[in-house]
Amino acid sequence: MIVSINELGVVRRNITRADRAAADRLGGFGVATVHEAMGRVGLMQPYMRPIYAGAHVAGTAVTVLLHPGDNWMMHVVAEQIREGDVVVAALTAECTDGFFGDLLATSFRARGARALIIDAGVRDVRDLTAMGFPVWSKAISAKGTVKATLGSVNIPVVCAGALVNPGDVVIADDDGVVVVPAAVAAQAADAAAAREANEAEKRAKLASGELGLDMYKMREPLAKAGLKYID
Amino acid sequence: MIVSINELGVVRRNITRADRAAADRLGGFGVATVHEAMGRVGLMQPYMRPIYAGAHVAGTAVTVLLHPGDNWMMHVVAEQIREGDVVVAALTAECTDGFFGDLLATSFRARGARALIIDAGVRDVRDLTAMGFPVWSKAISAKGTVKATLGSVNIPVVCAGALVNPGDVVIADDDGVVVVPAAVAAQAADAAAAREANEAEKRAKLASGELGLDMYKMREPLAKAGLKYID
Amino acid sequence: MIVSINELGVVRRNITRADRAAADRLGGFGVATVHEAMGRVGLMQPYMRPIYAGAHVAGTAVTVLLHPGDNWMMHVVAEQIREGDVVVAALTAECTDGFFGDLLATSFRARGARALIIDAGVRDVRDLTAMGFPVWSKAISAKGTVKATLGSVNIPVVCAGALVNPGDVVIADDDGVVVVPAAVAAQAADAAAAREANEAEKRAKLASGELGLDMYKMREPLAKAGLKYID
Amino acid sequence: MIVSINELGVVRRNITRADRAAADRLGGFGVATVHEAMGRVGLMQPYMRPIYAGAHVAGTAVTVLLHPGDNWMMHVVAEQIREGDVVVAALTAECTDGFFGDLLATSFRARGARALIIDAGVRDVRDLTAMGFPVWSKAISAKGTVKATLGSVNIPVVCAGALVNPGDVVIADDDGVVVVPAAVAAQAADAAAAREANEAEKRAKLASGELGLDMYKMREPLAKAGLKYID
Amino acid sequence: MIVSINELGVVRRNITRADRAAADRLGGFGVATVHEAMGRVGLMQPYMRPIYAGAHVAGTAVTVLLHPGDNWMMHVVAEQIREGDVVVAALTAECTDGFFGDLLATSFRARGARALIIDAGVRDVRDLTAMGFPVWSKAISAKGTVKATLGSVNIPVVCAGALVNPGDVVIADDDGVVVVPAAVAAQAADAAAAREANEAEKRAKLASGELGLDMYKMREPLAKAGLKYID
Amino acid sequence: MIVSINELGVVRRNITRADRAAADRLGGFGVATVHEAMGRVGLMQPYMRPIYAGAHVAGTAVTVLLHPGDNWMMHVVAEQIREGDVVVAALTAECTDGFFGDLLATSFRARGARALIIDAGVRDVRDLTAMGFPVWSKAISAKGTVKATLGSVNIPVVCAGALVNPGDVVIADDDGVVVVPAAVAAQAADAAAAREANEAEKRAKLASGELGLDMYKMREPLAKAGLKYID
Repeated sequence: MIVSINELGVVRRNITRADRAAADRLGGFGVATVHEAMGRVGLMQPYMRPIYAGAHVAGTAVTVLLHPGDNWMMHVVAEQIREGDVVVAALTAECTDGFFGDLLATSFRARGARALIIDAGVRDVRDLTAMGFPVWSKAISAKGTVKATLGSVNIPVVCAGALVNPGDVVIADDDGVVVVPAAVAAQAADAAAAREANEAEKRAKLASGELGLDMYKMREPLAKAGLKYID
Repeated sequence: MIVSINELGVVRRNITRADRAAADRLGGFGVATVHEAMGRVGLMQPYMRPIYAGAHVAGTAVTVLLHPGDNWMMHVVAEQIREGDVVVAALTAECTDGFFGDLLATSFRARGARALIIDAGVRDVRDLTAMGFPVWSKAISAKGTVKATLGSVNIPVVCAGALVNPGDVVIADDDGVVVVPAAVAAQAADAAAAREANEAEKRAKLASGELGLDMYKMREPLAKAGLKYID
Repeated sequence: MIVSINELGVVRRNITRADRAAADRLGGFGVATVHEAMGRVGLMQPYMRPIYAGAHVAGTAVTVLLHPGDNWMMHVVAEQIREGDVVVAALTAECTDGFFGDLLATSFRARGARALIIDAGVRDVRDLTAMGFPVWSKAISAKGTVKATLGSVNIPVVCAGALVNPGDVVIADDDGVVVVPAAVAAQAADAAAAREANEAEKRAKLASGELGLDMYKMREPLAKAGLKYID
Repeated sequence: MIVSINELGVVRRNITRADRAAADRLGGFGVATVHEAMGRVGLMQPYMRPIYAGAHVAGTAVTVLLHPGDNWMMHVVAEQIREGDVVVAALTAECTDGFFGDLLATSFRARGARALIIDAGVRDVRDLTAMGFPVWSKAISAKGTVKATLGSVNIPVVCAGALVNPGDVVIADDDGVVVVPAAVAAQAADAAAAREANEAEKRAKLASGELGLDMYKMREPLAKAGLKYID
Repeated sequence: MIVSINELGVVRRNITRADRAAADRLGGFGVATVHEAMGRVGLMQPYMRPIYAGAHVAGTAVTVLLHPGDNWMMHVVAEQIREGDVVVAALTAECTDGFFGDLLATSFRARGARALIIDAGVRDVRDLTAMGFPVWSKAISAKGTVKATLGSVNIPVVCAGALVNPGDVVIADDDGVVVVPAAVAAQAADAAAAREANEAEKRAKLASGELGLDMYKMREPLAKAGLKYID
Repeated sequence: MIVSINELGVVRRNITRADRAAADRLGGFGVATVHEAMGRVGLMQPYMRPIYAGAHVAGTAVTVLLHPGDNWMMHVVAEQIREGDVVVAALTAECTDGFFGDLLATSFRARGARALIIDAGVRDVRDLTAMGFPVWSKAISAKGTVKATLGSVNIPVVCAGALVNPGDVVIADDDGVVVVPAAVAAQAADAAAAREANEAEKRAKLASGELGLDMYKMREPLAKAGLKYID
C-alpha cells in the first residue's frame, strides 16, 4: 500500500488523472457492465452500499488513508479535490465511525467532488440525501471522530478490498463500486460499449420467450458436461 | 439435500406443484401470518431481504442448486418455469456474487416467473426495480459469474436455512420469505385465514387503549409466574 | 444491569422521567449533534437501523428486558407507557426474532409511545411504515415468539451497547440512536444548541470554497505533526 | 422441514437408521473426502466448529428441533438416543445460547451418543473437553436456556444449512460436518474409498517435486483456456 | 454510561471493590453456574473469547473507556490496579485494533491484575500465553494504536453488552465472561454454591442412564404441553 | 489490482524477490513489531487466523488470484514457488470454500514454500497441522472446488485488505499477517530491530512496578489534555 516506510503523513499534490473523456464515458455504463468489461476484477466488496438509491457517478480518484476514529485527513484531502473527482477513503483498520457529514460534504462539493467512497461510516445521511451528495460506505453511524493523527493523501490505497491509485476512475451505482486503472480507462470504456452493443437485441429475444439456453447455444455444452433430464 | 449421489447434474422436468388456488390464497396473507399459521417453521433466515420495499408475492417453487461463482444453471432453470412460479436458488456454499441481472429477469418473466429467491447476490437492481421484478437475496453485488459447472434443477434444496421442495409454495414480503410444503398449502391457508379473522377486532380494541394484558387475559398467568410490581 | 439478583420479574411503575421540555428540545437536534454534545458517548451500535427513512424522534425511555424468542413482557411494558415515551427493549442474549408487529404498535401508540428501539427483530414492517410508527431494530424478521418467560420492566438495561435507565432521553434518526441520562438532559440540550449555533456560518464558508484547513486553522498543527507535501 | 403443520410437538420413536457398517466405514474417512465422494453436497456451513481439535466421529442422526432460548427438547431427545447415534440439533431461528453442558453430555453419553452437532451455542466446554465428548457448534456461550416450549424429535431438520433426516449418517472432524443420506451410505463409503485409494501414490509423487500440472495433465487444458506465461 | 457530560477525561481513584472473599468464592464456580445463579443476566456477548484455553479467573473490576484506535488510557488505568483486580476495557465504538500486548501485560501483572477483558483486539498473544496472563477479547490483531485522546477510568462502562461498575466482580472462563454487581457478590456466591451442591448426585444418576425426563419430572408437563409420541 | 485488462490468465515467471537476508531478518520479529516499524500499515484484516497456534514464518510472496469456488490456479502457482517463498492467494470475491488441503501442501512444501496465506478456506487442517505446514486463512471448510476458470499468478493482488506485490516479504504469526514491500525490506528490518532494542529494558522496568505513565513521561501531556483525577 506504500512504497516507502516514510510515506505516512504525505500529501501528493500532483497526480495524473485518467483521461476525463474516458472517465465520463465509463460513467455511462453500470458498475456490473464495467466490471465485466474489466475481466471481473476491480470491484469493491459488496458491503459498500449507497446511502440512497439511484445514484450513479464516475470520477477520478483522489485518495486518503485514515486511522480508526480520526478524520483529520478528510480536511487535508479536501484541498486536493479537482472538478470531477471522487474521494476514496481507506482505513488502516476496520472502523464504523462517522467520518463524514454535511459540513464536509458542502466543502467537498464546493471543491468539485462528485461523491465519497469510504470504507467506514458516514453520518448526517438525511442531509446528504437532501443535498444529493452520494456516498458509498460500509456503515451509517453518528459516532464522531477526533483530529489527532496523520494519514496520507493521494497514495495508493486498498479500499474495501480494491486497490485504488490516485487518478484511477471510480464508477459507483446501486450495484456497488468498481475501479478502473487510469491507464486502461479508454480501453475499458470501449470494452464496456462493446458489451452493451447487442444487449437490446438480446433483451428483446428473451422478452419474447426465447431461452438463454438457445440464444447462447448452451444445450450442447451442457449435455457434454453430463446434464441429464428426467421426467 | 439430495437422495442419491448421482443427483447432481439433473433436471427434473415434471414436478407436482401445489394447488394454484391454495398458493394464491396464501399470497393474500403476510409472511408473518403464514409463518404463525405453520406453527413457526419454514422461514428463511432474516438476512434474505427484498431489493425494493413493498413487494409481496406467492408462487410455486422451481428450485435450482448453484455452485459459488457459477450461474450456468440459471439458464437451465429458466426453461422449467411455468406461469405462477417463483424461482428458488440455493448454493452449495456461501457466495455473494451477482448471479442474476436484468437479462435473466427478462427471461424469467417471459416464462411466467413472479420472483426470484436467491441465497447469494444479484445485480442490476436499479433495472430490476424499474421492471418491478422482485428479488429476495442475501446480497447485492456487481460481481459476475462463470458458466462452467453443473448443478441441478428441481431437486429439494436448502435455501437460507429453509428446505424447499419443488412445487412448494413460497410467500415473500418485506418481512422475509416463508415456505409452505405443497401437501399442506390449503390447510395452511385455512389456518392463516383463521388467524386473521379476528385481527380487526383486536386492533380496534388495542387502538382504543385496551391492553393486551387484559385482552389476552395475561394478568393471572404473569402473577403465577411470579411477576412483581413495585412502586 | 441489575442491582439485585431478585430483580428479574419486576415491573417498576414509578420512574422519574427526564424533564419533558428538555427531552423535546433534544428532539430538535440530530443524533450526531447530540452525541457530540455528550462528549461522544451514549450511542447505540450502528447495526440499529430505522425500518423506514426519515423518522426522527425523541422521548423518555421505558425499558423492558426480554429473553430470546419470548415477547411476553412487551405486553407488560405497554401498560407502563406514558405520552411521550419511547420503549427501549433489550435482550438477555442475541436474537433476531420478530418481537413486535402492527398489533403491538397499535397498542403502544394508543398508550402514547413515540417509537420502539429494540435490540432484536420486528415484523409487519409494511404496516408499521403505513402507520408511521417508527422502529429502530437490529433485524427485520417474520419469526414469531412465545409468551412463557418473565423479564423485567423499567430496570436499567443495556441495549445495543448503550446503558439506558428508565426515564433517560432517547433520540433517534437516520444516523442511529443516542441516549442522554435524565439528569443531564437540559445540559445536553444546551450543549447541542451551542454546537449548532454557528453551523450555518460554517456551512456558508465551506460552500463558498473556503477550506476546513483554514477555517479551523489546521495548517500549523498539521505541519507540526509532520505532514509533508510533495509534488 | 415439516410435512404437516401438526408436526411440531412430535417425537418419532421408530426411525430407520443407516446401516451401521456403512456408517462406521464412513467414519474412517475425513469430512472433505466424504463431501467430495458425495458430489460436493451435504456440508454444513463452515461456522460449525469443534469445541476441541482432533475429534473425528461418525454416527446415525437423531434430530431435534429447538426454539431460541429453550432447551426443553434436549431432554426429550436423550431418550431416543441409541448406541452409535449423533444428536443433531436445529433451531427455528438464529440463537447463540448455551443449550448443552456437562450434565446433558453425561446423559447423552450414557445413552450411547457419540457427539452433538448443534446450530447454536454450548457451554461447560472445559468439562466437555475433559470428558472427551465432542461437540460441533456455532458458538460457545454460558447463556442458559428455559424449558417452556415444545419442539420436535426425529423430524427432518435443516441444521447449519444442511438437511438432516433421522437416521442419516453424520461425519464430523476438524474440517466441518457432512451429512450422508441413509439410503446412499454404503454407496458413499465406496466412493470415498475409491477416492482415497490412489492418494498415497499421488502424495508420494507430489512430495518428490512432481507438479499437479503434470500429474493431472493440466497443461493442455490451461493453454486451451488461454493461460499465458510471461517472463 | 456516564452520569454527567463532564465525565470524560476523568479518573476515579477511590472505588468500592466487592468483598474480596466473595469475589474469590465466585472464582470457584464456572461462568455458566454464576450466570444461572444470577437469574441469567450479566453475561458479556459470546464473541468475547479467551486467547488461550483453560484460563479461569475472578477479580474486582477496574474499568477503562477507550476510543477506537487509541490506547492512551491503558497506561492511566494501570496505576489504578490493585492486587486481585481485573481490568475491563470498553470502547466508545467498535474496533478490533490491538490495544494491549506483552509490555502492558507485564505492567498490569506487576500492579496485581489477574486478567484483561477488552471489547476490542489484543496482540502478542504468543507472549501473553507464555506469561500465563489471560485475556478475553473480541479480536486478535497486530494493529497498533495511538496515544492522543482522553477516555476515562473507573466510570461505569458497557463492555460487550454488559454493564460493569468499578468494583464489580468479573468471572471469566472458557465459556465467557459474567459480571456480578459488588452489592450482590456474596448473595450470588451463595446461590452458585446452592446450584452446585447437588450436581454430583445428578451427574451420577445421568451417568447411570437415568433420564432428565424422569429426574426432573418432565413427562407430565410435556404431555400437558401437548407432546405426542408416534411410532 | 491489474495494470491491463488483458492481465487475467497470466503467469509471470520472473519476479524480483526481496533480499533473502532482509526477509529472514524480518522473520526474527513478531508481526506486531514489523507493523509498528512500518508506520502501522501493511496488515491484513484480523479475520486471517492461523490453523494452529505457534507458527511464525517469513518469506517472499508468490501471488495467485483465484475465482470463488475454483482452485485451478493453485496448481499453476505451485510451479512458480522457489525455496523460501510464501504463497499468497487472493480472491476476486468473498468465498469460504476449501481451496487447499494436504495434497497441495505436500506439493507446495516440495517446491520450497514455507506457508500459505489465503483469503478463503482450507481443509485437511488436521493433516496440515501434523505436517507442520502453516496456513493463515479466513475459514476452515471441507467444501471442495472445481478447476474451470483462469486466474493469474504473480500479479499484484489485494489479500484480506492488504496489497501484495510478488516478491514482497510476508511475515505471519499468531497476531496476524503483515506485508513489507520488497524495496523497503532492509529498512523495515532495521526499524524493527531498533524498536526491539530497548524492549528488554522497558519490560524489566514495568515488571518492577514502574508505570508507563512515568516511563513514557505521559503525566504532563495527559494533564494538558485535561485529564482530571477525582477521589
